Amino acid sequence: MPTVTNARLLYVAHPTANEFPKAGVHFKYVEEKIDLDKVAIPDSVLVKILVLGSDPFIRLRMRDPSVPWTFGPLAIGHPVDNFAIGIVVRSEKSEFKPGDYVYGFLTFENYAIFPGPPELQHSLKFLKKFDKHPDILASIYVGVLGMPGETAYAAWRAYVNEKAKTSKTIFINSAAGGVGSFVLQYARYTNPHLKTIVSAGSQDKLDMLKDFGADVVFNYKTTDTAKVLAEHGPIDIAWDHVGGAVLDAALANMNFFGLIIRAGTANGYNQEETGVKNIKVMMEKALRKQGILIGISDDMIEGAKGFTEEVTKLYLEGKIKTRETMYYGIKEASKALIDTQHGHILGKPVIIVADK
Amino acid sequence: MPTVTNARLLYVAHPTANEFPKAGVHFKYVEEKIDLDKVAIPDSVLVKILVLGSDPFIRLRMRDPSVPWTFGPLAIGHPVDNFAIGIVVRSEKSEFKPGDYVYGFLTFENYAIFPGPPELQHSLKFLKKFDKHPDILASIYVGVLGMPGETAYAAWRAYVNEKAKTSKTIFINSAAGGVGSFVLQYARYTNPHLKTIVSAGSQDKLDMLKDFGADVVFNYKTTDTAKVLAEHGPIDIAWDHVGGAVLDAALANMNFFGLIIRAGTANGYNQEETGVKNIKVMMEKALRKQGILIGISDDMIEGAKGFTEEVTKLYLEGKIKTRETMYYGIKEASKALIDTQHGHILGKPVIIVADK
Repeated sequence: MPTVTNARLLYVAHPTANEFPKAGVHFKYVEEKIDLDKVAIPDSVLVKILVLGSDPFIRLRMRDPSVPWTFGPLAIGHPVDNFAIGIVVRSEKSEFKPGDYVYGFLTFENYAIFPGPPELQHSLKFLKKFDKHPDILASIYVGVLGMPGETAYAAWRAYVNEKAKTSKTIFINSAAGGVGSFVLQYARYTNPHLKTIVSAGSQDKLDMLKDFGADVVFNYKTTDTAKVLAEHGPIDIAWDHVGGAVLDAALANMNFFGLIIRAGTANGYNQEETGVKNIKVMMEKALRKQGILIGISDDMIEGAKGFTEEVTKLYLEGKIKTRETMYYGIKEASKALIDTQHGHILGKPVIIVADK
Repeated sequence: MPTVTNARLLYVAHPTANEFPKAGVHFKYVEEKIDLDKVAIPDSVLVKILVLGSDPFIRLRMRDPSVPWTFGPLAIGHPVDNFAIGIVVRSEKSEFKPGDYVYGFLTFENYAIFPGPPELQHSLKFLKKFDKHPDILASIYVGVLGMPGETAYAAWRAYVNEKAKTSKTIFINSAAGGVGSFVLQYARYTNPHLKTIVSAGSQDKLDMLKDFGADVVFNYKTTDTAKVLAEHGPIDIAWDHVGGAVLDAALANMNFFGLIIRAGTANGYNQEETGVKNIKVMMEKALRKQGILIGISDDMIEGAKGFTEEVTKLYLEGKIKTRETMYYGIKEASKALIDTQHGHILGKPVIIVADK
């Protein structure tokens, strides 16, 4: 293994609270050299990156380190890191050997050293081996079979499934992302009696969601969400990726004892969240609202059990489908991250770094 | 029993959504005659009213009947009705006999016929007998031992108690009302390790809450709620009677996996609720929020079991205290209802109509 070029996407500045991240300003693409044989990896693993995930929540990590959160901040001057798939090149850890497929929090570069320098020791930094199924692309393991799928699966089983049995209607807003499109399909699979109402912001997303089995689809940019919900509601379960006015529309059309899952904040990641005025119906309709984060609460850890086995099977059977938008190489990684914040992507954005 | 005067408080007009109710405009006091021997009570009960409750939530019943809610609207041209205590004068129902103490949804007048005309057949209209304890005033049965106490008790047991065991801090805003002051004391009784932070809007309310065992008390009119919570938090459990900016302050200071109980809407009963901007932390901190209504969900019905036995005992032992502000007679009833909306009352407002 010779000395090779290691492309890296560095995180170089925090966007302000109400600013979308920009290439060249907040991210910097660099190329360095790495000697794969000689680079020091004390008690570490050298991983060749195959696929990097790009997820909306990364925006919450683009913050001043003084702001606490479960997921540590991106570290200035270091590569971006996120859920990724790789293959072990060298290992000084007994649990990994060359050729192992690994999944974990890895850096945006061709070759990542895990666990890396102290600045990258995030609370959820982890690396685990997995048996890649020969018929499943590596990219699927950062989407349906990775964090987004696992988040949706764990939350559904922890908080939603019991309620779904006695419910008639579920509304999923901005349903075309990795989490929402999983929820739609898993809801249909586990509770086929549920009427599924989903929104998205473009016709190709609506077509995809229709193909994934949604009963009612509508474009939230051209149609009034409250009007659609009033027609097709009341809503027993709302799965909210947005907040703001969309949450107000959902609140106004919730049924008594309804359940709201708060799974994202498209309305508030890059700008101040619009005020929500209908919160008072939480009491008036005895609603429950649950915020979800993968892997850190007992409920979600319990809910995730059995995920890989069940969802691998469903995926291979075609009962859970996915669409991906591919970005190629570290050079396109900042575009993937930024497009993800703007929501201009059909399906799950993935950054393909190497084939094998 | 001769013909006597029957004073009645009629509900005569709906206040608009952003208006406080007013005497003479929305309520009208009238005096009529009633022949207690001859008045027709087909399959009904004639009840002499002893005490009427005045509760903040009545504002939600002052609405156009086209707006659905679990508690039916007040009916124009008929007396106001609410939780009340009375004594049976005559009965044509086999389960009641003269002299029985009864608790239920009764009309604001000296003598109420239950169930009354069709306009008063609210979904929760009920009447039940109870054994009045000789050492407990009748008024207590519309307060600590009535709906407010039962609401707080049921919600605590259904949603809060398990979480409280592993929590350090609870915040109760506008804690001086019937529900909040019960929660404070029941929290201290069941989970004495909890630090209790409570707010109220006047010094006499703060003194009362201190007497009820609160650890930290502050006046939300003169002190910044967010600042107090930042100093004494993070908050594991927030019991919210207000919404709006106070909820924003609580959200900003919630601990991970925190629980918010939404038990009232002081900010929104008589005016549009102020927008809440921090809802996005529901996801970022994996919070749960639960709206509560007495008696209509399985959780709350289950939670209320054992209420009368346990709380009667705690009250007699002085472990749950109460303060009441008395209004006297139907003539003062509209003042009680209106003062309740403005929050200018120390302790639980009760309308004493007769001694016995």
